Amino acid sequence: MAFMTGLSAFPITPSDANGRVDVSGLRHLLSRLTAATVDSIGLLGSTGSYAYLSREERRRAVETAVEAVDGRCPILVGVGALRTDDAVRLAQDARAIGASMGLLAPVSYTPLLDEEVFEHFGTVSRESGLPLCIYDNPSTTHFRFSTALVARLSELPGIVAVKSPATEAGSTAAHLRELRALVPPSFSLGYSADWNSVEALIAGADVWYSVAGGLFPEECLRMVRAVQRGNAAEARRLDAEMKPLWDLFREFSSLRVIYAAVEVLGLSGTHPPRPILPLSNAARERVAVVLRELKLSQIPQKAVPSLETAEHT
Amino acid sequence: MAFMTGLSAFPITPSDANGRVDVSGLRHLLSRLTAATVDSIGLLGSTGSYAYLSREERRRAVETAVEAVDGRCPILVGVGALRTDDAVRLAQDARAIGASMGLLAPVSYTPLLDEEVFEHFGTVSRESGLPLCIYDNPSTTHFRFSTALVARLSELPGIVAVKSPATEAGSTAAHLRELRALVPPSFSLGYSADWNSVEALIAGADVWYSVAGGLFPEECLRMVRAVQRGNAAEARRLDAEMKPLWDLFREFSSLRVIYAAVEVLGLSGTHPPRPILPLSNAARERVAVVLRELKLSQIPQKAVPSLETAEHT
Repeated sequence: MAFMTGLSAFPITPSDANGRVDVSGLRHLLSRLTAATVDSIGLLGSTGSYAYLSREERRRAVETAVEAVDGRCPILVGVGALRTDDAVRLAQDARAIGASMGLLAPVSYTPLLDEEVFEHFGTVSRESGLPLCIYDNPSTTHFRFSTALVARLSELPGIVAVKSPATEAGSTAAHLRELRALVPPSFSLGYSADWNSVEALIAGADVWYSVAGGLFPEECLRMVRAVQRGNAAEARRLDAEMKPLWDLFREFSSLRVIYAAVEVLGLSGTHPPRPILPLSNAARERVAVVLRELKLSQIPQKAVPSLETAEHT
Repeated sequence: MAFMTGLSAFPITPSDANGRVDVSGLRHLLSRLTAATVDSIGLLGSTGSYAYLSREERRRAVETAVEAVDGRCPILVGVGALRTDDAVRLAQDARAIGASMGLLAPVSYTPLLDEEVFEHFGTVSRESGLPLCIYDNPSTTHFRFSTALVARLSELPGIVAVKSPATEAGSTAAHLRELRALVPPSFSLGYSADWNSVEALIAGADVWYSVAGGLFPEECLRMVRAVQRGNAAEARRLDAEMKPLWDLFREFSSLRVIYAAVEVLGLSGTHPPRPILPLSNAARERVAVVLRELKLSQIPQKAVPSLETAEHT
């Protein structure tokens, strides 16, 4: 597993009302990501609704992605589950099918203690052999990783990266400095929350784990490449242009907005898993307006056929 | 379904490391509850680790309970799941097997909106026909019910009760007054969080949904009956006696303490589902000391045989 850097693009997992993965819809979304040459793909992240899909469907999604991506970039796969034994099995599945890395969130019902999360991660790593990225997402897992716990986990040989939530610029930079001093140089530090991630990259983060990148990879890559070239001003200019989309993410959640965007773009008629509801018509119309204004709705029709076409070929 | 009142006792669900329910262990715990004549049993509540058990194992637990309780009191069954369709199926299972009521928590990964929770509850109620108790447990579901949302749900014919978290006495009394004014008279208002629940009963709550009641039903029933007889002073005296146990619940979580207590009492060697860890030896010793001091460790050996005995009969 190469050291994680750059843009990690997190697509949704199109699926029907029964939680069955729409294989051709997923392939279609993945083709946009490989065409744009993203640095990695984060399959079955929170945006990929992993928590709502059965083991069988998660396996189906990984098989589809491994085949479709065909080694062009690493595939990270969400392997989180409430039970440790289930997470082990999901990580074993992902590794057997050919995933590069597991994204492990400390999914909780009963609130978890640090020691429990440490043991959980150690067990999944040891019993699966899959390299793991710590998936720190307190808004969904309700567990907060201290930098000390991340540091302790980074000493385990199979735990190679962390995806932390980016907060506003100053505190992310401080978090990054603190973490960098505690982990091995080979340990990759990345952030999510698209509206704060470009600043995290500018502050020195290795990876942007991106929801927008799962649907608009070219636009997000442009920002990442600008930072990598040392052109923070250009990255900030592009980031500022995206503000209307970031504002929608903050207002409605990136998950709900991206589902609406996929629908607006005609890429799939899939909806989030119930009980999550699609955005209202009024909100979806606002998404459509923003996509038009940002010129994000101009899908190259040749390269990216509509889902309907893909389904009938 | 009779109007819910009194003590609803929530036992753990003994199970092995693979999440398979220990049927004889469960029967044994249930026999203590029916012998004490609790007002209802809350099977597969948070304490019953419902969130960590498969549909098959949850069905096994309900079958065991329906058979063991044999109509002597209503059985409430946790039917919560992340997906709406899964919750529907669990509620259908519970109803088909003979449960009296479903306990439905808005289990979440993606944080849920009020409208999503409303639709989720309406769908589960409509498609299962099982009377439902709203399971409001923000520390595990990360969703907070407003009194307005409970009121709106209480208008649905199949939603008949709510289990709210009891906070300190003054605010619970205010919450209860507010809710009582908004719901039909036939709608039952109950509370959990054992250390605040006797005060909730004194303030006029209909039900105490109790973790301690799942293991120490006689002690908890004594408090409930005192309140029902109008003897608040006696209820408060008994409640104050239990303070060392309540303090342990608050320090380590009631779930972890009750698992330790079950072990200390020799009722079962079951552990919480991983990643949740059993209490440390030092903490378990503190539980043992409190049980001895409160004389909660004196199991009547005739009426309540040890698990080992039960397993070999």
